[in-house]
Amino acid sequence: MFNLKDYLDRTREWVEAEMDRRLPRADEWPEGLHAAMRYSLLGGGKRLRPILCAAAAEAVGGQREDATLPAVALECLHTYTLIHDDLPAMDNDDLRRGRPTSHKVFGEANAILAGDCLLTVAFELLAQSARPGPLALELARAAGSRGVAGGQYEDIASERAAPDAERVRRIHLHKTARLIEASCRLGAIAAGGDDFVEQLGRYGRSAGLAFQIVDDILNATSTPEQLGKAAGSDARRGKLTWVVVHGLDRAQRDAWALVDEAVAELHGLPGPVEPLAAIARYIVERHH
Amino acid sequence: MFNLKDYLDRTREWVEAEMDRRLPRADEWPEGLHAAMRYSLLGGGKRLRPILCAAAAEAVGGQREDATLPAVALECLHTYTLIHDDLPAMDNDDLRRGRPTSHKVFGEANAILAGDCLLTVAFELLAQSARPGPLALELARAAGSRGVAGGQYEDIASERAAPDAERVRRIHLHKTARLIEASCRLGAIAAGGDDFVEQLGRYGRSAGLAFQIVDDILNATSTPEQLGKAAGSDARRGKLTWVVVHGLDRAQRDAWALVDEAVAELHGLPGPVEPLAAIARYIVERHH
Repeated sequence: MFNLKDYLDRTREWVEAEMDRRLPRADEWPEGLHAAMRYSLLGGGKRLRPILCAAAAEAVGGQREDATLPAVALECLHTYTLIHDDLPAMDNDDLRRGRPTSHKVFGEANAILAGDCLLTVAFELLAQSARPGPLALELARAAGSRGVAGGQYEDIASERAAPDAERVRRIHLHKTARLIEASCRLGAIAAGGDDFVEQLGRYGRSAGLAFQIVDDILNATSTPEQLGKAAGSDARRGKLTWVVVHGLDRAQRDAWALVDEAVAELHGLPGPVEPLAAIARYIVERHH
Repeated sequence: MFNLKDYLDRTREWVEAEMDRRLPRADEWPEGLHAAMRYSLLGGGKRLRPILCAAAAEAVGGQREDATLPAVALECLHTYTLIHDDLPAMDNDDLRRGRPTSHKVFGEANAILAGDCLLTVAFELLAQSARPGPLALELARAAGSRGVAGGQYEDIASERAAPDAERVRRIHLHKTARLIEASCRLGAIAAGGDDFVEQLGRYGRSAGLAFQIVDDILNATSTPEQLGKAAGSDARRGKLTWVVVHGLDRAQRDAWALVDEAVAELHGLPGPVEPLAAIARYIVERHH
């Protein structure tokens, strides 16, 4: 009988040990920069993207170890986006994963550099993998202007804009779903499951969109203590969210429908899919 | 008889056409972000790094076309460092390559994102090359915390510090020389000249250190009109420069000595080395 909590705990501990081992130590020059990189990367988090990457590798019949480098790279990349998004010039957030944000601790210049370096480390790791070309291409496309960064650009540009269902969908698909989609695709690519990349990508895209809709719901309904970051901040900033555009009830229903779509993609894979199915459900049932 | 000006013009035109062709167009979503990326990348510059990359490919017996992807990637990466270095939280510069800096034109958030995306594009291009692993590993190591970003971190940390010859050498070797070294190494790797990577790297390291020393000299002695960026800014900020630590005369002598060291590395290469020799001399004779 599959135990999700146990699976998440085990996989998180594994990827956190790999991250710790593969990042430069804080006693190596430039010490302050390495300390800033490690502060944000190793300071907690659900580790959803590396866990999905490992689970996707297993779902195509591989081992989670096939996905070690992309899993660590994904969390480095995700953490870089958090550090830069939190900057005063962007969302100006003081709290992240229950702790002060990077620029509050290390100053703005060093936060920018720590983010830059985590983005660079992501590609340094993939360059050392068995399939550097396909893996780096997938991550770069997901992260760049046509992916996460484009979504962040549009997210900022749309502050205080009129509700627009198509626009919020475009933002969420790029800013959040694209990297979750890439997490699954990278796991499949790393484990040699090329025939299942598209299928697992569709799973990740639906699950990723559901994840962001739930984030919108939690931001509107939780306390900062529950979230480990600012709550109600979307409304204060006039952010375009699924809740603003569609209301809470519809948002909840859409999230569940997307999870059903995600789970429906899991048929016919050669490896175990219980983890991916359970993670999709966990995405909408979580409280932070 | 080798004509340097002609070589630089031809190679610059070639790489600028490749950059223009390989970057997302400004009429593709997200338009404003792509416009910001193109503004900084295609807005002039000596294109020293891609030219060195192409010249290194030729020096090992290859063609400049072998180096197209790393050449474009190097200029994307260099431009990202300029955009982020110019930010208010870093050096707070208003002028670059004779035009307003990215954050003055597009705002701080979009300048950060445009830099992030150019860094990402660099690896997207290398991922599509014939040797994605070695090329991306070289660029990531040169750009990251143990390279350019580490140099920029130390540069900021050392503002108003006491003159320190070892410290200024460490800053210059990381912040500037490392990417010029990588430009030469990437050209050799891309053209299959693996036996000459170390040798061309030593050429680039010496030439790169000379380049930064001359930058320090020009910053101390030129007008903004001559430079296309702020002049005298090093002194105003209390930056650790070669001129501050060693004086103008010694700086000039050190630059020439380093160029001699660089040129001495060019013996025994299978292809033409006139361009690399002439570029090293040009580095200390230039006036901007």
